[in-house]
Amino acid sequence: MNILYIMFDQLRFDYLSCAGHPHLQTPHIDALAAKGVRFTRAYVQSPTCGSSRMSSYTGRYPSSHGVQFNGYPLRVGEWTMGDHLRRAGMGCHLIGKTHMVADADGMERLGLAPDSVIGVRQSECGFDPFIRDDGLWAEGPDGFYDAKRSPYNEYLKSKGYPGENPWNDFANAGVEGNDVASGWFMVNADKPANIAEEDSETPWLTTQAMEFITQAEAKGDQPWCAHLSYIKPHWPYIVPAPYHDMYGPEHVLPAVRSEAEREDPHPVFGGMMNNRIGKTFSRDEVRERVIPAYMGLIKQADDQMGRLFAWLEETGRMKDTMIVVTSDHGDYLGDHWMGEKNLFHEPSIKVPLIIYDPRAEADVTRGTTCDELVEAIDLLPTFLEVAGGAPAPHILEGRSLMPLLRGEETEWRDHAVAEFDYATNPICETLGLAPKDARLFMVVDRRWKFMHAEGGLRPMLFDLETDPDELVDLGASAEHAEVIDLMYDRLLAWGLRMSQRITLSDEQIAARRGKAPRKGILLGVYEPDELAPELTAKYRGAVPSE
Amino acid sequence: MNILYIMFDQLRFDYLSCAGHPHLQTPHIDALAAKGVRFTRAYVQSPTCGSSRMSSYTGRYPSSHGVQFNGYPLRVGEWTMGDHLRRAGMGCHLIGKTHMVADADGMERLGLAPDSVIGVRQSECGFDPFIRDDGLWAEGPDGFYDAKRSPYNEYLKSKGYPGENPWNDFANAGVEGNDVASGWFMVNADKPANIAEEDSETPWLTTQAMEFITQAEAKGDQPWCAHLSYIKPHWPYIVPAPYHDMYGPEHVLPAVRSEAEREDPHPVFGGMMNNRIGKTFSRDEVRERVIPAYMGLIKQADDQMGRLFAWLEETGRMKDTMIVVTSDHGDYLGDHWMGEKNLFHEPSIKVPLIIYDPRAEADVTRGTTCDELVEAIDLLPTFLEVAGGAPAPHILEGRSLMPLLRGEETEWRDHAVAEFDYATNPICETLGLAPKDARLFMVVDRRWKFMHAEGGLRPMLFDLETDPDELVDLGASAEHAEVIDLMYDRLLAWGLRMSQRITLSDEQIAARRGKAPRKGILLGVYEPDELAPELTAKYRGAVPSE
Repeated sequence: MNILYIMFDQLRFDYLSCAGHPHLQTPHIDALAAKGVRFTRAYVQSPTCGSSRMSSYTGRYPSSHGVQFNGYPLRVGEWTMGDHLRRAGMGCHLIGKTHMVADADGMERLGLAPDSVIGVRQSECGFDPFIRDDGLWAEGPDGFYDAKRSPYNEYLKSKGYPGENPWNDFANAGVEGNDVASGWFMVNADKPANIAEEDSETPWLTTQAMEFITQAEAKGDQPWCAHLSYIKPHWPYIVPAPYHDMYGPEHVLPAVRSEAEREDPHPVFGGMMNNRIGKTFSRDEVRERVIPAYMGLIKQADDQMGRLFAWLEETGRMKDTMIVVTSDHGDYLGDHWMGEKNLFHEPSIKVPLIIYDPRAEADVTRGTTCDELVEAIDLLPTFLEVAGGAPAPHILEGRSLMPLLRGEETEWRDHAVAEFDYATNPICETLGLAPKDARLFMVVDRRWKFMHAEGGLRPMLFDLETDPDELVDLGASAEHAEVIDLMYDRLLAWGLRMSQRITLSDEQIAARRGKAPRKGILLGVYEPDELAPELTAKYRGAVPSE
Repeated sequence: MNILYIMFDQLRFDYLSCAGHPHLQTPHIDALAAKGVRFTRAYVQSPTCGSSRMSSYTGRYPSSHGVQFNGYPLRVGEWTMGDHLRRAGMGCHLIGKTHMVADADGMERLGLAPDSVIGVRQSECGFDPFIRDDGLWAEGPDGFYDAKRSPYNEYLKSKGYPGENPWNDFANAGVEGNDVASGWFMVNADKPANIAEEDSETPWLTTQAMEFITQAEAKGDQPWCAHLSYIKPHWPYIVPAPYHDMYGPEHVLPAVRSEAEREDPHPVFGGMMNNRIGKTFSRDEVRERVIPAYMGLIKQADDQMGRLFAWLEETGRMKDTMIVVTSDHGDYLGDHWMGEKNLFHEPSIKVPLIIYDPRAEADVTRGTTCDELVEAIDLLPTFLEVAGGAPAPHILEGRSLMPLLRGEETEWRDHAVAEFDYATNPICETLGLAPKDARLFMVVDRRWKFMHAEGGLRPMLFDLETDPDELVDLGASAEHAEVIDLMYDRLLAWGLRMSQRITLSDEQIAARRGKAPRKGILLGVYEPDELAPELTAKYRGAVPSE
């Protein structure tokens, strides 16, 4: 069994036809859902790329691995998906984006050369990179956002696209007269990107994935997990023809928001809705320009899934490959007066998750949905089980989804947790918060969604049963004190979880119980005859002499 | 300025004359206290050697560094005292014990050779070892407890002590007829150890320390921190003449315990008091045999402090060396029907802490005591300040004691925290606890001491004001629900602390605020003219051409 672990970036849970979108048809992803299980309540562990991904790639909460926001380096030595799967005999490869920043300081302290096999794995989040391209080749007066090389830009140049950064000038820009009409300005979102569709990011990476699989199968030395990790439908919101005008304002759903949300909002929520992003996405003209492009990017992604799945079928890989389709977080798109992600409303923190397992044991669940509370950190334990590795609950904080994929009775978790660190956000300064205080924690159960804020700020609370759109914040409601207490109890238990005892497994610990006397450690022994003679042999007998 | 960081092992806070012991005179340690500050409420972060020490050496709580009990390896790459001090230009050296177990698996995964400089530091808890000897050369049917080499055994052999393990057969055993009378059997505690006093562990290590300092001063290339880490007065409880009979049963203080403690005790407390250790130490004959030896070991230690301090005075080092005397935990010695350590009563979790700072700024506090709640993890931040390094609160969880040493006004912490993991203790099986549930957390403030137990067990609570001997457990008292709630609030805040964001400092984070646009990341921008032209320069202009 191989694993094809497909992640889109910033794909909302509800922008798929199988998830109920009325205008966006995604027949290929729907077809995968019809052959597998679609999870309706899958939560990522952070609403931002870098920390959400590090949680998915390590199977641990952000507070456990320390990457609590984009650009926070993952500490050297942290166990990753690659470390776990390789130990179980499965290769673990990257095709696309991780958003991982290496712990250069830690690597230097340990003398790890960045270009050694081990150094590369430490720099690439434990993956063996077939292609690493984080897909954000932004450039400003202080230089590039991402200083690495871009294989995608190299591809575009090889195809004859001119200039230093064709990602920027062609793949993510339209044209107006002789000038670039950059996708960074959302007013251009309705223009076609100035690139042949087959050269745009999503088809290019799909081709790379097919190339990887072809090579891996030709080699045939070990099963593989391939993380096919797309940058889209992440901004810049712009897509090549014909996808640029498949959707129009008539396909844009009304924003989920209410005037009441703007009256005395939670300070962090208020800060976010009143920054440039929130204000811009609250304008209808912006939504009507951007959302059709976002839908076009998803439509293109779905077409590429069709191409890939058909090829897997043809090559026989559909029979021996588990396929996962998910995202690293969602996109507010103007809901709740917000753009981007950065808080815990469903459009931001809930993601699509579809898992197809070709094995007969999963036949019973094909085409079903599962409403259990699953977390992105559940994927790695699932993959480890597929690879035949021993579970590692002393490191991995998620749970294997296998029982859910096989329709087995299981006592599943009753709440999920996510976190967000906004210490780099200028609103900390407005709120007067030290970096350590700019942290948020979400606890969601089958009915309630709760947010705790450090720094002395009040909590937020939504009743998903009576208020599924999360428009009424009950965080200050005295009537809900009991629910809030329960949520704090859960957060306490979570805060005290065992998360760093990673060097010893439960089995190793249990095996040590009562064994110290067999290595001579005798405690509370007054006289030799209290113990079996073999335990005291070294402590009796004649005094040694020359 | 140099730092001489002296740690005894298992030295109770109250077994010094400066701390009020009526029979045990420790004039040399008292003299240091008279020149420095004696902290009356210094708590270690765990009552067991390995985790307490890893907390002291990393400046972090056990749950943060993961070494929650003896023999749990410290994960590769964890920042240690040596890493922090060396970066600040101060060497960091080990003379004696650390109880550190290397993360061999992690080192192998990162390709670190155990015998390289970096590999040795990773194996030696970040210290450059002048002498590493953990001082427990126990041996049973499954072999040695500690498989490393013992420099102390090598020393004894060089002095002509015969046999394979003279530590065991001579330094820690008396003699009866022709046979060893092992110190492992406490009935032998009143015998003199069969060794010349000057060859026993404490004098030997003191000589090593003098040798280290002589060499370091001769080299004179950089200031040093030397961790002089004794194994004694840790068991085996046996001491050479003349210390073996300086004290007798008449010097043994009555056990601090009450019959009420045995009625319906907390399950973990009950389990501990009813195991072999608790039962043995509850016998008066055991206490009367063991405690005089324990006192003799401390008396010998104090004499060695006298020798060392006099030598430092002679060599001029008393003027430029900060001296710290402390312990890694205490010893119940029969108090509370317990032996050893393993719970949070004062004799176990509170330690002596004396700090002498020769600089004029500390003159104001000389000879005073300080009652603030200090933690062992405060030492490393203190040392870092001495070394002139930048504070590292994103890694270090303690606080520099410098304001307290200088009598400066400061808002100090209002509670201290410790932890204990008893997952390897057979009582987990009796209690039916999984390893992750065999964990205890202490919160102590100026009046209350609270213990939370995972695994659904009830808490413990003591009122140190009305019950300084901790004989009345109020953990099940409904009247104290409010105190218990407060303690749980503190534990919640502690559980959510930022502990793993070690790769970025607060300053680095603050410096990132609002900087993304300068690297081209433009969020929520609809039209180019919303931003300063320099921010959008790369996104405007003519489409590139060949």
